[in-house]
Amino acid sequence: MKSSLADADLKTVAEALQGALVDLVDLSLAAKQIHWNIVGPRFRSIHLQLDEVVASARAHSDTVAERASALGVPPDGRAATVASGSGIKPTPAGWIKDTDAVSTMVDALGSVIVRMRERVDATAEPDPVSQDIFIQITAELEKHHWMFQAENA
Amino acid sequence: MKSSLADADLKTVAEALQGALVDLVDLSLAAKQIHWNIVGPRFRSIHLQLDEVVASARAHSDTVAERASALGVPPDGRAATVASGSGIKPTPAGWIKDTDAVSTMVDALGSVIVRMRERVDATAEPDPVSQDIFIQITAELEKHHWMFQAENA
Amino acid sequence: MKSSLADADLKTVAEALQGALVDLVDLSLAAKQIHWNIVGPRFRSIHLQLDEVVASARAHSDTVAERASALGVPPDGRAATVASGSGIKPTPAGWIKDTDAVSTMVDALGSVIVRMRERVDATAEPDPVSQDIFIQITAELEKHHWMFQAENA
Amino acid sequence: MKSSLADADLKTVAEALQGALVDLVDLSLAAKQIHWNIVGPRFRSIHLQLDEVVASARAHSDTVAERASALGVPPDGRAATVASGSGIKPTPAGWIKDTDAVSTMVDALGSVIVRMRERVDATAEPDPVSQDIFIQITAELEKHHWMFQAENA
Amino acid sequence: MKSSLADADLKTVAEALQGALVDLVDLSLAAKQIHWNIVGPRFRSIHLQLDEVVASARAHSDTVAERASALGVPPDGRAATVASGSGIKPTPAGWIKDTDAVSTMVDALGSVIVRMRERVDATAEPDPVSQDIFIQITAELEKHHWMFQAENA
Amino acid sequence: MKSSLADADLKTVAEALQGALVDLVDLSLAAKQIHWNIVGPRFRSIHLQLDEVVASARAHSDTVAERASALGVPPDGRAATVASGSGIKPTPAGWIKDTDAVSTMVDALGSVIVRMRERVDATAEPDPVSQDIFIQITAELEKHHWMFQAENA
Amino acid sequence: MKSSLADADLKTVAEALQGALVDLVDLSLAAKQIHWNIVGPRFRSIHLQLDEVVASARAHSDTVAERASALGVPPDGRAATVASGSGIKPTPAGWIKDTDAVSTMVDALGSVIVRMRERVDATAEPDPVSQDIFIQITAELEKHHWMFQAENA
Amino acid sequence: MKSSLADADLKTVAEALQGALVDLVDLSLAAKQIHWNIVGPRFRSIHLQLDEVVASARAHSDTVAERASALGVPPDGRAATVASGSGIKPTPAGWIKDTDAVSTMVDALGSVIVRMRERVDATAEPDPVSQDIFIQITAELEKHHWMFQAENA
Amino acid sequence: MKSSLADADLKTVAEALQGALVDLVDLSLAAKQIHWNIVGPRFRSIHLQLDEVVASARAHSDTVAERASALGVPPDGRAATVASGSGIKPTPAGWIKDTDAVSTMVDALGSVIVRMRERVDATAEPDPVSQDIFIQITAELEKHHWMFQAENA
Amino acid sequence: MKSSLADADLKTVAEALQGALVDLVDLSLAAKQIHWNIVGPRFRSIHLQLDEVVASARAHSDTVAERASALGVPPDGRAATVASGSGIKPTPAGWIKDTDAVSTMVDALGSVIVRMRERVDATAEPDPVSQDIFIQITAELEKHHWMFQAENA
Amino acid sequence: MKSSLADADLKTVAEALQGALVDLVDLSLAAKQIHWNIVGPRFRSIHLQLDEVVASARAHSDTVAERASALGVPPDGRAATVASGSGIKPTPAGWIKDTDAVSTMVDALGSVIVRMRERVDATAEPDPVSQDIFIQITAELEKHHWMFQAENA
Amino acid sequence: MKSSLADADLKTVAEALQGALVDLVDLSLAAKQIHWNIVGPRFRSIHLQLDEVVASARAHSDTVAERASALGVPPDGRAATVASGSGIKPTPAGWIKDTDAVSTMVDALGSVIVRMRERVDATAEPDPVSQDIFIQITAELEKHHWMFQAENA
Repeated sequence: MKSSLADADLKTVAEALQGALVDLVDLSLAAKQIHWNIVGPRFRSIHLQLDEVVASARAHSDTVAERASALGVPPDGRAATVASGSGIKPTPAGWIKDTDAVSTMVDALGSVIVRMRERVDATAEPDPVSQDIFIQITAELEKHHWMFQAENA
Repeated sequence: MKSSLADADLKTVAEALQGALVDLVDLSLAAKQIHWNIVGPRFRSIHLQLDEVVASARAHSDTVAERASALGVPPDGRAATVASGSGIKPTPAGWIKDTDAVSTMVDALGSVIVRMRERVDATAEPDPVSQDIFIQITAELEKHHWMFQAENA
Repeated sequence: MKSSLADADLKTVAEALQGALVDLVDLSLAAKQIHWNIVGPRFRSIHLQLDEVVASARAHSDTVAERASALGVPPDGRAATVASGSGIKPTPAGWIKDTDAVSTMVDALGSVIVRMRERVDATAEPDPVSQDIFIQITAELEKHHWMFQAENA
Repeated sequence: MKSSLADADLKTVAEALQGALVDLVDLSLAAKQIHWNIVGPRFRSIHLQLDEVVASARAHSDTVAERASALGVPPDGRAATVASGSGIKPTPAGWIKDTDAVSTMVDALGSVIVRMRERVDATAEPDPVSQDIFIQITAELEKHHWMFQAENA
Repeated sequence: MKSSLADADLKTVAEALQGALVDLVDLSLAAKQIHWNIVGPRFRSIHLQLDEVVASARAHSDTVAERASALGVPPDGRAATVASGSGIKPTPAGWIKDTDAVSTMVDALGSVIVRMRERVDATAEPDPVSQDIFIQITAELEKHHWMFQAENA
Repeated sequence: MKSSLADADLKTVAEALQGALVDLVDLSLAAKQIHWNIVGPRFRSIHLQLDEVVASARAHSDTVAERASALGVPPDGRAATVASGSGIKPTPAGWIKDTDAVSTMVDALGSVIVRMRERVDATAEPDPVSQDIFIQITAELEKHHWMFQAENA
Repeated sequence: MKSSLADADLKTVAEALQGALVDLVDLSLAAKQIHWNIVGPRFRSIHLQLDEVVASARAHSDTVAERASALGVPPDGRAATVASGSGIKPTPAGWIKDTDAVSTMVDALGSVIVRMRERVDATAEPDPVSQDIFIQITAELEKHHWMFQAENA
Repeated sequence: MKSSLADADLKTVAEALQGALVDLVDLSLAAKQIHWNIVGPRFRSIHLQLDEVVASARAHSDTVAERASALGVPPDGRAATVASGSGIKPTPAGWIKDTDAVSTMVDALGSVIVRMRERVDATAEPDPVSQDIFIQITAELEKHHWMFQAENA
Repeated sequence: MKSSLADADLKTVAEALQGALVDLVDLSLAAKQIHWNIVGPRFRSIHLQLDEVVASARAHSDTVAERASALGVPPDGRAATVASGSGIKPTPAGWIKDTDAVSTMVDALGSVIVRMRERVDATAEPDPVSQDIFIQITAELEKHHWMFQAENA
Repeated sequence: MKSSLADADLKTVAEALQGALVDLVDLSLAAKQIHWNIVGPRFRSIHLQLDEVVASARAHSDTVAERASALGVPPDGRAATVASGSGIKPTPAGWIKDTDAVSTMVDALGSVIVRMRERVDATAEPDPVSQDIFIQITAELEKHHWMFQAENA
Repeated sequence: MKSSLADADLKTVAEALQGALVDLVDLSLAAKQIHWNIVGPRFRSIHLQLDEVVASARAHSDTVAERASALGVPPDGRAATVASGSGIKPTPAGWIKDTDAVSTMVDALGSVIVRMRERVDATAEPDPVSQDIFIQITAELEKHHWMFQAENA
Repeated sequence: MKSSLADADLKTVAEALQGALVDLVDLSLAAKQIHWNIVGPRFRSIHLQLDEVVASARAHSDTVAERASALGVPPDGRAATVASGSGIKPTPAGWIKDTDAVSTMVDALGSVIVRMRERVDATAEPDPVSQDIFIQITAELEKHHWMFQAENA
């Protein structure tokens, strides 16, 4: 597969895309995990809110994986790759109180946002097209981040 | 959370549901992985077909996880749990020829179907409600299985 | 109206269907009653959740009543029959705090589920078609039951 | 809950709303009962027509119950209240010939319309907002009434 | 094509599926035939009702045929196979009075239901997945059967 | 407005379009009149069927009027023109029994069809585009005609 | 057909409904006539706007005719009745300049509004249900009236 | 622009419509302000509920402004007019706790309802058409009012 | 049932319609048969393409059957009539390779097209309305024909 | 690719289809060009109207190109073929006043209609199926032609 | 609320977002004001066009306000803040001729665009995520600006 | 038409937009040409895939043309301009094998992408708004490019 980018640029961009893919797949799994295990007076409200994060994370993981393919780099979103490579702190097993659910999501989103902003910076020069994708993902993640912060404020 | 089932029955059913959850989440990740990495003259056709497997697997994983919760058992669909517990043979990394993509899916679906039929048997007595869910999942997986087999026939 | 079932089988199945009809109509009325009278910080969330129970209960009451007709047994879902025959504990009159609303629903759903599981058992032999309907109703009721339990956990 | 109405006005309006609620819930149960039990050459046609009455009655019962709540009066739509308080003559049990089904509905609608028109008059002064709701319900009930009359003309 | 079933089981299930396919294709042709040839005061009502049977029969014939394929057995729904193998009594040619149209459908549905219930029994052990499909088809056919019976009651 | 047709051709075609416009507007008014005034056991069925004629007649009247405009001939669909120029026998005033409603429609449609077929012939040479419109209108009117005939057969 | 109104009241209300029916049917025919014959720089804009009047007039004519039936009075919307009884000044034949089209509609709407407001007054006492219908028709006609006035301001 | 109302009546009605316009635009701005600034455990639930108030207020402000235009009175919904003329107490700046958000809305809705009921009274004689609009707005505002009251009950 | 056509014309047209009905029903059954039995690398693509032929053939068979009824001729689309009267070569039983599936469809469509074009000619004089239906069916069949030819080119 | 037509007939029809394809593609490009460059008080109205011509022209160009393929003749719609072969007078470059935009469209549509009517004549004998397509295209183009003429009348 | 940005960057971005919020809310109010008060031959066309600006402005004001919240800065969109802080020249009161309406919108959009482009520049360094939002808003405003300019060209 | 850009900047941006317009219109024509002329075993799959390129190219050509207008530069998308100015190698005439169709698209997309990336660079400074449009077009073209490459890999 022929790439639109020179080799050095491609290396930087590929790394950013692969990192984002792992983060986003894990985010979708973590949010689903809490969606199923949350308990407490805000159960229904947070249960629904988590599914919006899942939908975002799934859609964006597809976008970054297909972006990697479009640049000629095979993406890797397999379970083992995600389990070992994700930057999100493992979600605890079992039922989780709504307040803890919210703060777990605030932390997870916060840590993904930090890495996503680094990807925005890293790709500005080598590939403004990929950068634009990271910018839009960041905008959406920061919106989810605010909403979970507001819940526990 | 109070369960509708007696303890012994619950143990059997919980095990079946948790096993199905891990299988189905991994199936969705494997099918997505191939969806992104497939190449060859049937690229578009199989690329689309794989997304139908992803949609099935995601919907059914939600059903079995919420069924576990409904019986009072916290489901576990976290990346590490899936990576270590799945019965599906790991998908190879990198680009994959369409013919290999199809046979990989035939194998993956075949192995999940065997375990799903065991769950149909195991839950018949303790919980016909969960059994009915496994029956419907099996029907759909066997349909996908046929369609991939027919591709390589 | 000619029935597909032998007389003895029909008697068992008819009783199960009529019992389910009364339970489901009363469940829809009870959930609406609380939908209108609930107050407290979870008002909006539970108010909406209750309407999903109403929609389920109405749809399933139609299914079991038409199933009775299809077997040649006239169903009875009149107000007086429901008021006198329902197994659900009467909902208290007047405004109801959200926490009480939730526990009232946990109890109501719990008691209907017990009877519905008995109907699953009772109809397995005489009519697997009716049994399948009870299985699907039970699945959905147990899901609602979990969601209300999770709210008060 | 604070009301927009003075106490005397509220008393009149509350009574009208509670009466309408009981009438409309019972109308929905009666129409469903006949929907399930009707037989004869017009079976399909009337079976479908009855479900339109059910839909009307359910929608309007929600409107009047929520109107009561909006005025600070807890509505009561429980099975026992409906069974004992409804002004509709009890529907006979068992299969019902289509001609009888039609005349039963003509009677039921006719008696609800009389009471609804009294509510239009009673609420004109104390609360034109509630009156407007009764006016719109009356318009729709009189349309259903005509259609069933036309069937048996 | 590899089957999920052992040979003996497969033979029983394949026979049931093939029989159901022929019955359902013929049912769709018979209902269309009457849909086009019915006359009498209930023309429009029954004309529309018959198209609902056609839609059911077509959808279910697709389900059972694809189920056969999924089990590794090639289904046969060709005109000659249907003409020679169907258990439904041939529909008379030419215009048909509405009353006769209804009783023809009552008979046709009745005879298919008897065979479908035998298939439910026959497949319970060898393949609960196929059985579940027969159960759902039976439920729907028995609903159509009731509705045509009610028309001529 | 410049016409695509020579003057002699235009005269023939214009006459056919204007005649069709008057017939179709009157047909829509006649069908609505009966829609509102019909009584009898087939009330609901015919009431709905008539509205399908109204929808057809309205859509086709728009087509022929705009076709006249497109050929540079101002169409005339005013009440007085319709009242004096229509070839449909006046509908009787007041309530109308369903059987009479049906035969009135059979006659009205029959007389419009005769004239519409003459328009098909008359426009074949001068304007196959207008002819195609008359052909499609005739097809639809003959379908409605059959359906009302079948009702009274 | 039994009426909800006393005889004297019914006479007043019936007259108002029949008058409104004639006005609204003629308004729909007049607006369609101009829709087809308008020319000038605002052709497209007014052509579309006129179809919104047609849609309003058709919907409301159905409402008032069915309201008459609901009160036991057979409505009369036949071509000859409309042609002789309408209060709208006849639309001129042939092409019509956009400016004239607009002023013709301003006049037509203006004259119908005057009569509709008289109907609002006349029915206030005898039937607030019919009055409510006239009020809503008036609101919509006055909105159309403003929009055509604004066009020629 | 010609008005359907006499001058004295018009003055009263115009004042009511202009006052309602200012109230409703400000209500939409206030509800949006809180929608953006709310924090606390009910964040998501109230955040969504507020957008339903915004949608109501925007739709109704359009209705009353266009009603003014339809009566020949130019409406004024500019920022400065709203800022100086609204009867709603200014919303505080900055983040707002959910409990305070709810009580702010209860107050804002309460004060608009009082003025809207005065407009219902004031317009009854001069213009029942405008009155009907105020009645429907009041009904919806009182429903929102109840729902926020129920939240803090 | 009265026909719009003279007897001699009717005979020609009736024969054409009945022939088309048999061809189209058999085409729908043949395409479904292959839809279920196709295997090979183009499985998914042709499997979907065949269902578009089925949809065409079903829709057109309904059109020609109802056209026959509209002309007063009872259509015959029963299984035995189709099996004995169809001009399509019998489809082979069992699994069918994709290349063979395509050429079977090229042949089947080709032979139906030849007969359909003869019907276009035969009906031109006696009934241009039926001719127009055959023209549109031919257009669609020739499009399907091209697409299958292009597959095997 | 095998054709349904004899060689001589095919030559005539192929020429007509290829000519229509070039005309329609150029019409879509010309209408888009004016859609982007129009200025003047009718900007918005004509801007939108032009996009309806674009949509028509695109849909019909697809129909005639696929009709050519269906007859075994490869269609040619490439930019150079269109630029050199179109019968439409080149649109001027740069901004275009609305009045000129309208008259440019009147001329363009007028010249395409003349050629399309010649194609209707030319194909009547050799292929009534293609003729039917040209008839329907002509009907739609003449409607657009009228609407632009009416704008400048 | 924790921000993703450093304090200095946040100050710049917050100012840009707050300024954009005020501009966009005022733009929505100004466009609505003209939507209600416009008169003249382009009334309908501009009336509709203005509502598209309102929809844009409302959607974008929501985006920038929620972006501020997402960065931890409470947005301020209250009436008084808008009235005193907007950079748009006040719209004149009362009826407005269509030509003036257009030029008022050209000016309003022009002045907002200038400030929005400054915000694009100002946020490039501190926050490319917010910059992307301003870029997309600018693109849409410049499109509206062109369309109003074209109207008066 | 007043531009938001200074003259020098405008010159650069206008050139980029005009170049993109020509590329995208030609891409849409080339993709349609192959859509109609492709033959071979992948006919259906590539035929459909090409229409997605057409849809993309049409939508983006509209965006860049309207962006030029929004900046005050009249766009030129006429057939002759496209034929002479496009950078895409002319598509060969006549039937085209699927493999060649795919490689023709890989080349065409590849050459447009190179130029589009140059436009991303060229417009970064003078107009980030236009640049953002080019970035999004590039992203989508590179996705199509990958998919065709994957087909022939």
